[in-house]
Formats: sequence, C-alpha cells, structure tokens
Amino acid sequence: MTNAAPVSARRDLTHAPLLVAARGGTPSHVPVWFMRQAGRSLPEYREVRAGVPMLQACFTPDLACEITLQPVRRHGVDAAILFSDIVVPLAAAGVDLDIVPGTGPVVASPVRSAADVAALPALDPAQVEPVAQTVRLLVRELGRTPLIGFAGAPFTLASYLVEGGPSRHHERTKALMHSDPDTWHALLDHLAGVTLEFLRVQVAAGVDAVQLFDSWAGALSEADYRRFVLPHSRRVLSGLADAGVPRIHFGVGTGELLGAMREAGADVVGADWRVPLDEAARRVGPGAAVQGNLDPAILFAGWDVVEAEVRRIVAEGRAADGHIFNLGHGVLPETDPTVLTRVVELVHSLEPGRR
Amino acid sequence: MTNAAPVSARRDLTHAPLLVAARGGTPSHVPVWFMRQAGRSLPEYREVRAGVPMLQACFTPDLACEITLQPVRRHGVDAAILFSDIVVPLAAAGVDLDIVPGTGPVVASPVRSAADVAALPALDPAQVEPVAQTVRLLVRELGRTPLIGFAGAPFTLASYLVEGGPSRHHERTKALMHSDPDTWHALLDHLAGVTLEFLRVQVAAGVDAVQLFDSWAGALSEADYRRFVLPHSRRVLSGLADAGVPRIHFGVGTGELLGAMREAGADVVGADWRVPLDEAARRVGPGAAVQGNLDPAILFAGWDVVEAEVRRIVAEGRAADGHIFNLGHGVLPETDPTVLTRVVELVHSLEPGRR
Repeated sequence: MTNAAPVSARRDLTHAPLLVAARGGTPSHVPVWFMRQAGRSLPEYREVRAGVPMLQACFTPDLACEITLQPVRRHGVDAAILFSDIVVPLAAAGVDLDIVPGTGPVVASPVRSAADVAALPALDPAQVEPVAQTVRLLVRELGRTPLIGFAGAPFTLASYLVEGGPSRHHERTKALMHSDPDTWHALLDHLAGVTLEFLRVQVAAGVDAVQLFDSWAGALSEADYRRFVLPHSRRVLSGLADAGVPRIHFGVGTGELLGAMREAGADVVGADWRVPLDEAARRVGPGAAVQGNLDPAILFAGWDVVEAEVRRIVAEGRAADGHIFNLGHGVLPETDPTVLTRVVELVHSLEPGRR
Repeated sequence: MTNAAPVSARRDLTHAPLLVAARGGTPSHVPVWFMRQAGRSLPEYREVRAGVPMLQACFTPDLACEITLQPVRRHGVDAAILFSDIVVPLAAAGVDLDIVPGTGPVVASPVRSAADVAALPALDPAQVEPVAQTVRLLVRELGRTPLIGFAGAPFTLASYLVEGGPSRHHERTKALMHSDPDTWHALLDHLAGVTLEFLRVQVAAGVDAVQLFDSWAGALSEADYRRFVLPHSRRVLSGLADAGVPRIHFGVGTGELLGAMREAGADVVGADWRVPLDEAARRVGPGAAVQGNLDPAILFAGWDVVEAEVRRIVAEGRAADGHIFNLGHGVLPETDPTVLTRVVELVHSLEPGRR
C-alpha cells in the first residue's frame, strides 16, 4: 500500500451544485442524486446486466461505465455514483467470495480468529485497475457532472467477513468485537487499510467526491460504534483529507450515530427517513452538510405524496450547512423510474438554502 | 365485540417485582424477563414443538401453557409471557394465513383496498377461547409469578396484511397509508378493535400485564407514526386503562418514537439496544417505566462481557421511574439458555433504583 498523496485526474468542477453544497456553500440549485440510482429500477440496466454476474459487471470498465451513466442520462441527477459493490475491494484482493443473487455476498471462509485476520490479503492497487479504468472512462463521459466514488466502511465489510454473508442480527460480529477486541481491532484496521487504498485509487483516477457506506452501522449502539468502529472509519476518512474531495458518510438506522459519524471525518452525513434533516443538522453540528431523508417507499405512494415529501425535505434541509437531496436508503427495485425523474425536476425547481 | 369492562380472574400480586416496577415503585429486586424467552433457544421447547405447526401450538392450551412455563421453571424469570404469535387473533377471526417456518406469516389475500378492509372479519371472543383457557391454566400453575398477555399492535398487523407477509421495506404499507389515508385508518381502526378484543379476553382470563408489540413501528418516522399509527395504538392501550394491568409497549428501532409510544398510553416503554435506559427514560418522560436494552447478540460474547453489560443496564435503569430488565429484542434461536439463567441470577443480585 502506498501512503503517497494520490495524483488526481480530477476535473475542475468548483461550481457543481453537489460540490458547492458539500462544502456548505450556496449552490445554484439543490443538488440531487439517489443511492442505488444505477440498478434494478432501470430497464436499461436490467438489459445490459442480463446474464452478467454482479462482480463481473463491477470489473468490466465499459459495462460499469455504461451502468453508472444510465441514471445521469435518464434523470439528470447532479452526480453519478460509481457502479460498484461493497465487497469489490475484498474480491479484488483475493478473498474467496461471491455475490449470490437474492442473497448477497457470501464468503467462503468466514473470518473469526486472529489467524484468520492475519491471513487476510492486503489490496494492491493493480488489483482494482479495472475500477480505476472505469473512473477514467466516466470522467471523460460525464462532462460537468461530478462522479462520486464508493466504498463500504470497515464495520460493514467486517460483518460480511465474520458472519460469512448478510446477517440480520450480526451476532457473531458483535460477539467478536466484545469478546476479543484485539482481533476485532486488527480486523477493522486491516479493512480500513483496504478501504482507504481502494478510495485512493478512485481519487487518483478522478472521482470528485467519495461516499463511505456503513450499511450496517445502525445495528450498533453509539457506545459500541465509538469504541469499535469510529476509529477505523476515521482512519479511512482522515486518510482522504488531503485528497480535496468531499467525504460523504452514510448508514441506515443511524439516528443515534449521526454526531459520531460526523466526528469520524465526514463532510456530509447521510440520514435515513427516520430523522428529518433539520434534526440531522442539529445532531451533526455546524460545518457539515446533510443528505438523504426521502423514504424510498414513499416513491410508491403517488405523485402528490411524493411532491409534498420532497418540498418538506428541501425546506428542512435549509437548516443545514449544506443539503444534498437524496433518498434515506437505496432505490427499491420495483420503483417506477419516471417518478425519480420528476423528483429531480421538482428538487431543481426549489430554492436552496442561502449562506 | 363487547365494550364491557372485563371481569378479571387475576391474582393479587401487589408485591410482585414486575408489577411494582411497572407502577414506578421500588421492587424487592429488579424484575427480569426476556422477550421470546419461550422458544427455540430451549431444547425442551424444541422437543414439545416437534411436528406441531406454530398456529396449532398457539391454539392448544395444554401445549401453550407448557411452553409458557418452561422458561419460568428454567430461568426463574419474574414473569411468564403468554406463548402466542402476532397473527393469532387474525387467524382466529378467520383471516386466511399461515406461519411458514423460515419465512413467517403469509397472508393468502393481501389487504390493499377499502373493499378488502370492509371484508375483514371482526374477532368474536369465542374464537380465542383456547387462548383464554391457556391463560386460566397458567394462572393456576404460575403461583406468584405474573403472566404477561401479548398482542401485536395495529401497525404491525397491518404490515403483514398489506404486504402479504414479512417485508423488509414495507413499501406497500407505506404507500397505502400515504396515498389512501381513509382506507389506511379504516384498516388500523379495524385492527385496533381486534387487538383490543384479544387483549380484553386475556385480561378477563387473568393476565397480570400486557405487552403490545409493534415489531415494525421502527420503520416509520415520528411524523408518520404520530399521524398514521399512534391514534390506533392509543385506542388499544386506552381501552385497557380500566383493566388495572400495566401496559408495556415495545418495538425495535424505535429510538425516535419512544416519547410518542409513551403518549399512546404505555405504562412501560421498551427500548432496544440502541438507546441506553437513562436516555430512554428521558425520552419517555417522568411517570413511565422502561424495559429492555440488552443486545441479544451480546449473549454470544462470553460471560465477562454479558456481566458488564447487565451491570451497566441496571445502573442506567435506576434513572427511570421503574425498570424491568429485558433484552432489546427477542432471544435469538442459537442463544445458550444457561447464559440467560445466569443473567437472571445476576440481575436479582443487583440493587434496584429507589423512589
């Protein structure tokens, strides 16, 4: 792994609304993108993915580039998010795992001991060269639209490795962190290294922002989060402090953790639909932007309901030092994509907060 | 349905620690029970359930009584909780549903329109006579140990009916509440009637407390909870105000809703592991007891960790106007039951809060 500052191929997008809002400035309009905007809600996505396994799609630059571009073309969102998966850097490093349709990532040999942790491979940047290539293709194609890089946070990666796959209760993960903190911290330290390396590769290739997804962090109490997770997420986020790109940090069900996730080094903290953005802004404190809050289930409730919710969220977002419009979780597969396009148009028509 | 006050066969258990704590008094020791204490973690449970479908077990008084008693005998907990399932009153009323092992309740004809709601059957007390009989058997067997009655709350029942089964995102449920509030409120009103009737039957048969489980309420924002759910949960809980039994109300992931769940008419509000009990006490306000907070996953972390967590929770519980020790969610199936027994012994050895 290299500790050198990444050499960036980034475009100068100083006035892009997403980046202005992430810095806490006043954007020309409220920027909007959707978590999982590239994916199963789009027929053009289902078409190009037909017969192509998920990991193969992530490691095929032309295809990953096309999938990343699809929602930008269709919806006119203010950012592309790199099509990837949380386990991509682990798979690239040589961890034996697969993404099983209908289940999620399945790890061949779960990681549960100090020896298992010691045997985990580091990530060599060359192993994610296809991802770097995807980013370079995207930077050329995207024009003035920012590209958000993507990685799973150490805790979420650890849960997949310890449980051997998706878990509802994370009992083995929590048991390990509490019963063997040395092994736990060694595991998280290793994963922070992998994650940081993966994001540095993306930054060097030209992404304009990064989102660190801690999908499962909401399963933890604040005390456990602070003790067992925050130092490692901070290592990732602070390791990118010199990169000059906004760092977005999100997990679902993290109402109790918003302040701690900000402390981990986030410039933008994502909130789900349980905490309104004015309250989220209060919890993250001054100087951080917020993102999220539209319940993806609301997109099924008809336009009048969607419109009222969008207006509420934009109004509440004005209380924050920067607001990026987004869902409070990923787009659900059955979502009608035409509703997403209308949301973008509506958000763009509303007045952003001024500072 | 009858609106007459239930004629109760309840024992006089004025000094039972569970009931003292629920009233905000000083119990002789901190009372403890475990959500899902009667269930798959016990080999004696797996033995008596072998080959017996879940709903059949719930409607067989001798068996439901035995299952309810097992954890009381084994662990010495301070309360039995009636062995039942959230969908029992719906099944009793004639809704075509089944509990599918590994999946959960599956409803033959999902409820999604005003006509569907109008066609829902009411609950005749005679239809849950086997449950009343189970309660009467238990009251005889339990001696001085209180029996907690059990029902699912209207929102959680509605989610099963609208989705047709367990749902991760509740998108059809949320779409219905927002897009067709009249139908939604008619549905919740009907389910509140069924739930209230079911709990009145249990009270009349002799239960000493009730727990209203709103398993999925944590999927809602506070605003949606207050608008679409609280009035109906309140109808259930206030309908039991004359019954003289403490009303416990719990849902997982409800950190943002604790105050509202108290307002719905709970005497005891359950918290999951994300909100410490001193903070839960602050959120529910004075005059209500709290319950919960031990992460069921912690039971897998070894005794030293469990002991430290139990001591923390009992200490934090002293900040509340009444504390009932419990998990922050149900016992997980793989739990070692000997750990639960040790937890009971430890809780009983610790000093309760004084008031």
